[in-house]
Parts: sequence; C-alpha cells; structure tokens
Amino acid sequence: MGTFMDVHHIEGGVAAADVAAAHEKDLAAQGEFGVNYLRYWVDEEAGKIFCLVEAPDADAAAAVHRKAHGLVADEIYPISAEG
Amino acid sequence: MGTFMDVHHIEGGVAAADVAAAHEKDLAAQGEFGVNYLRYWVDEEAGKIFCLVEAPDADAAAAVHRKAHGLVADEIYPISAEG
Repeated sequence: MGTFMDVHHIEGGVAAADVAAAHEKDLAAQGEFGVNYLRYWVDEEAGKIFCLVEAPDADAAAAVHRKAHGLVADEIYPISAEG
Repeated sequence: MGTFMDVHHIEGGVAAADVAAAHEKDLAAQGEFGVNYLRYWVDEEAGKIFCLVEAPDADAAAAVHRKAHGLVADEIYPISAEG
C-alpha cells in the first residue's frame, strides 16, 4: 500500500456538493479495489480538487474514480514523504 | 483565516530531508504572519510538494515560505470545501 495525492482540474469550476457526492461514491466503490480515499480539498472557483488516497498502486486509485463516477484525476503522485 | 493548498514543482526532484528542513523553517517563521503550516506531502522523484496551510490569505502563506527558505509555491489554491 502507498499514499497518493491526485489532482483534478475541472474547467469552469466545480460545486462542493458535486464533489461531496462523488466522494461518497468513491467510498462506496473502493472496497473491492483495496483503496481508501482519505481526504479531499476543493477550490470550487478554480475547479481544483486534491484527493489523498491509500491504494495498492495509482491504477487502483484511478479505477475507483472510474467505476464510482468516471471523473479520473488529471495527475496522480505517489507520496514518498510527508509531515 | 482560510485554508490553502499550495503546490511546488522542483525540476529534477527533491529530497525528503530537504523538504523536512524547509518545513521546520516554515514553522519557525510563521508566527509573525499568523500562518499555520499543517501538513505536507512529497513526491520526491517528480519534485512535487503539496502544503496544506491555514493563513489569513494566500499572500501571508507565501510570505512565510519566502522568509523561511525562499521557495515560494508555484500555485496556491484557497480551499472552499473539504471532506
């Protein structure tokens, strides 16, 4: 298992309620992939979403987003250090 | 006070120890700015650093980085929702 930060960019911005709903779908879908979406942070006006996730690998994290709501991240980074 | 996520991109990658040292300098410098650097996540190979910070505004968060070590973020996003 590793920790990953993914970044979504949504042109035109994004509503908090839509992100919250998508996150609930992630939580419902993640079990079969061995993934745990931990936290997210949103800049609604800029359309930026950051998701912190524990996953076996980046593909598994993306697979949850794809199955849950189809909004796959634009970037995903394996976290090698944190503090 | 608001919450912000900043993103640094360092060409050629970055070492965890260097980020940890810079973060310690942030913590030492932030008091006079009313800023609180909360967490950071690093992808050493990609040279990506994400910093979660509470600050009166984005300029104050940047001022701490500038005074502490000079490595100002490439992007900073005001967080309007999180979960």
